Amino acid sequence: MAVKQRRAREREARRAAILDAGERVLEDVGYRSLRMEQVAVAAELSKGTLYLYFEGKDALCAGIAERRMRENFPALQAAAADAPDGLTAMARMSRRFFLHVTETPHVLRVALDWFQAPRLDDGTEDFRRYRAMVTEVLELIGATLRRGQTDGSIRAEIDPFTKAIHAWSSSLGVNLFILNAATVEQRIGRPFVTEALFEEHLESLLRSMAVTPAAATRALHASRVAEPLRKVSGER
Amino acid sequence: MAVKQRRAREREARRAAILDAGERVLEDVGYRSLRMEQVAVAAELSKGTLYLYFEGKDALCAGIAERRMRENFPALQAAAADAPDGLTAMARMSRRFFLHVTETPHVLRVALDWFQAPRLDDGTEDFRRYRAMVTEVLELIGATLRRGQTDGSIRAEIDPFTKAIHAWSSSLGVNLFILNAATVEQRIGRPFVTEALFEEHLESLLRSMAVTPAAATRALHASRVAEPLRKVSGER
Repeated sequence: MAVKQRRAREREARRAAILDAGERVLEDVGYRSLRMEQVAVAAELSKGTLYLYFEGKDALCAGIAERRMRENFPALQAAAADAPDGLTAMARMSRRFFLHVTETPHVLRVALDWFQAPRLDDGTEDFRRYRAMVTEVLELIGATLRRGQTDGSIRAEIDPFTKAIHAWSSSLGVNLFILNAATVEQRIGRPFVTEALFEEHLESLLRSMAVTPAAATRALHASRVAEPLRKVSGER
Repeated sequence: MAVKQRRAREREARRAAILDAGERVLEDVGYRSLRMEQVAVAAELSKGTLYLYFEGKDALCAGIAERRMRENFPALQAAAADAPDGLTAMARMSRRFFLHVTETPHVLRVALDWFQAPRLDDGTEDFRRYRAMVTEVLELIGATLRRGQTDGSIRAEIDPFTKAIHAWSSSLGVNLFILNAATVEQRIGRPFVTEALFEEHLESLLRSMAVTPAAATRALHASRVAEPLRKVSGER
């Protein structure tokens, strides 16, 4: 039994080391030009050994994405659980997600790159686990929206699934601007206050869900007190 | 004079051919790994001749972006001009912008890639012209928002500049999902109706600007009649 357990631990440790190496290589060269050889070199493994762990690029990307989402998930759950109503829970989860993004800015680059893959190999076990994790996050958002519909803070007409996809996708673009604030300033030729953009975005999301504009404003303020935003400077 | 005019025409034609070639190469290899040599080969020019037209990658990208924005600008202006009030003008401009994106999907890929450049060479004449064009688009959005504030359709508390940046950035993420609908479906493991996401996004933007939720709904419907959305299929 002890031997089996040691082997399982070693396998987990090597898998984690490959995901670390893969994330670094992806950040560096991007999804399109990534070759598995580069990951093998970065992880100090033979290509054959690498393929014992990941069947290809999409399995590797799925593993990286799944691990990040799993790490962040308890904080999202906690942000929702602490809130007095569904609308405030959505506000707190949005701030929490934004904190994750600012703490690991390279993850957005990797994600945007992978999102533009022309097609995905979704037949692997790693991809299946990733899809299950995506579903879990969407379910949490959906459940939070339904909670708000039940407690009367969120409009009954909202389709929780469509709104979850909208919150996810619109936030990607906003975060792209915030994490690249310095070059946004070069493009617009004037100062760009990233906090103002995030607050505008969150208020917009809340107004699109709330039963009344006043409820959206209350939830915005309630989430601000509970979770002060880390400053993201335009300078890098 | 005739010789001068012919030379100016030839220079313009060659510049356009380089922008075409640059856009193709960028779509293919991405901003990070793009080398000017590849553009010279694609445009059938020597590298020396290419540099007579564009001083570097950022000048070339600026030229490509500026041309696309200039082409689309009159349609945006017309969409705003036709509308009965500022809020409906914002709705019509959003639909018009979305049509541009779906007509030239590769432009989003090129744009997202360039947005993640760690820093930009903004000292060239091409970049100055690009920044002037960005400013012109932001000014049009800002003027449309102020028009709505004057005619009473848009909330007085909105900061037109922040809202313009918000509309721009959040739409990028939404369009990323819509243009990659097939792989979004693989990730979420269920059908994904791109039209529903776009309508959700537009309603969200309008609710964040409108004096009342009812005004947002009216503007959403008014813009829908004026400009039916082209279908974007999840299948590719």
